[in-house]
Amino acid sequence: MAKVVSKEDFPVGRVRQYLEPGPVVLVSSRHRGRNNIMTMGWHMVLEFSPSLLACLISSGNHSHRMVRDSGECVINLPTTRLTDQVIGIGNCSGASIDKFAKFGLTAQRAHAVKAPLIGECHACFECRVHDEAMIERYDLFILEVVKAHVAPRPLHPKTLHYTGGGIFMIAGKVIDESARFEPFMLRT
Amino acid sequence: MAKVVSKEDFPVGRVRQYLEPGPVVLVSSRHRGRNNIMTMGWHMVLEFSPSLLACLISSGNHSHRMVRDSGECVINLPTTRLTDQVIGIGNCSGASIDKFAKFGLTAQRAHAVKAPLIGECHACFECRVHDEAMIERYDLFILEVVKAHVAPRPLHPKTLHYTGGGIFMIAGKVIDESARFEPFMLRT
Repeated sequence: MAKVVSKEDFPVGRVRQYLEPGPVVLVSSRHRGRNNIMTMGWHMVLEFSPSLLACLISSGNHSHRMVRDSGECVINLPTTRLTDQVIGIGNCSGASIDKFAKFGLTAQRAHAVKAPLIGECHACFECRVHDEAMIERYDLFILEVVKAHVAPRPLHPKTLHYTGGGIFMIAGKVIDESARFEPFMLRT
Repeated sequence: MAKVVSKEDFPVGRVRQYLEPGPVVLVSSRHRGRNNIMTMGWHMVLEFSPSLLACLISSGNHSHRMVRDSGECVINLPTTRLTDQVIGIGNCSGASIDKFAKFGLTAQRAHAVKAPLIGECHACFECRVHDEAMIERYDLFILEVVKAHVAPRPLHPKTLHYTGGGIFMIAGKVIDESARFEPFMLRT
């Protein structure tokens, strides 16, 4: 069983450090007294300040209505310790299942939203829906990260990156090339 | 010097295999007889069919106007063999430099667009701007992949994944978990 991970406050303007590399994330939501979780691979960073993300939550997913109607969710970052849960959650529907109970995950109280944090994840980003303009056309939600919680170690977690077909790439070696960057490119 | 990579036609509906894991890409464009390249980390898959991507090309980048005015670009997938070029291209502006010449890259003729393919990349996805609705507000381009070229090997290239601060994660180990997926989840 995975353990709850202790986290610290993290600047919302720096969440790109964890999301730009393209990991699979778990989206947790709460609406009308029920929690849900979905596995998501289609997301991107959109802006540093305000801290904006774009992500696709298909209208075929139970989470679509929950995030849309509550206006909130949490983007949680799982590592390879949670591979079983990532796969399990992505292969069933929250319409009929309490995924926190089924997958042995801990719903923790968030700071700024009613959606729960997933305690076992490496990082949790509390989000509010910032712009609904692209939901009808593309199921595309634009979210603002309003509070971020990150485990201080490891600095480069072993995240999962989905390629389709049931195949994942796991985050590998890290290289520091900062000495070759122009100073203005390192400010953000 | 990196070599030109031989590629084959690839189904546009399957480009997620290469883009969903979140690699840094190189965006090539052509407008008014000039080519340009930019390094891009903020992008996502949006739809299988039509094959849609969303990506952020800041209005501060020379490529913004080139892609917007020409309505086209190519999303090229570099591997660690092109780390020097990825960093160099991301740290200068195409307003004053011919980046193909400066970084020793080969501009190849595309099939469906006037923007050039970067021969040394592992994959090249020819794109047309599909929807301009979010460009003004977020610098967000919605692109349709109209033609895809991919090197047949390696199946899982060593892509670069940016975390900010001049630090990159390199694509690591690949795990096949398809046996644990529901059949309907493997159709796409």
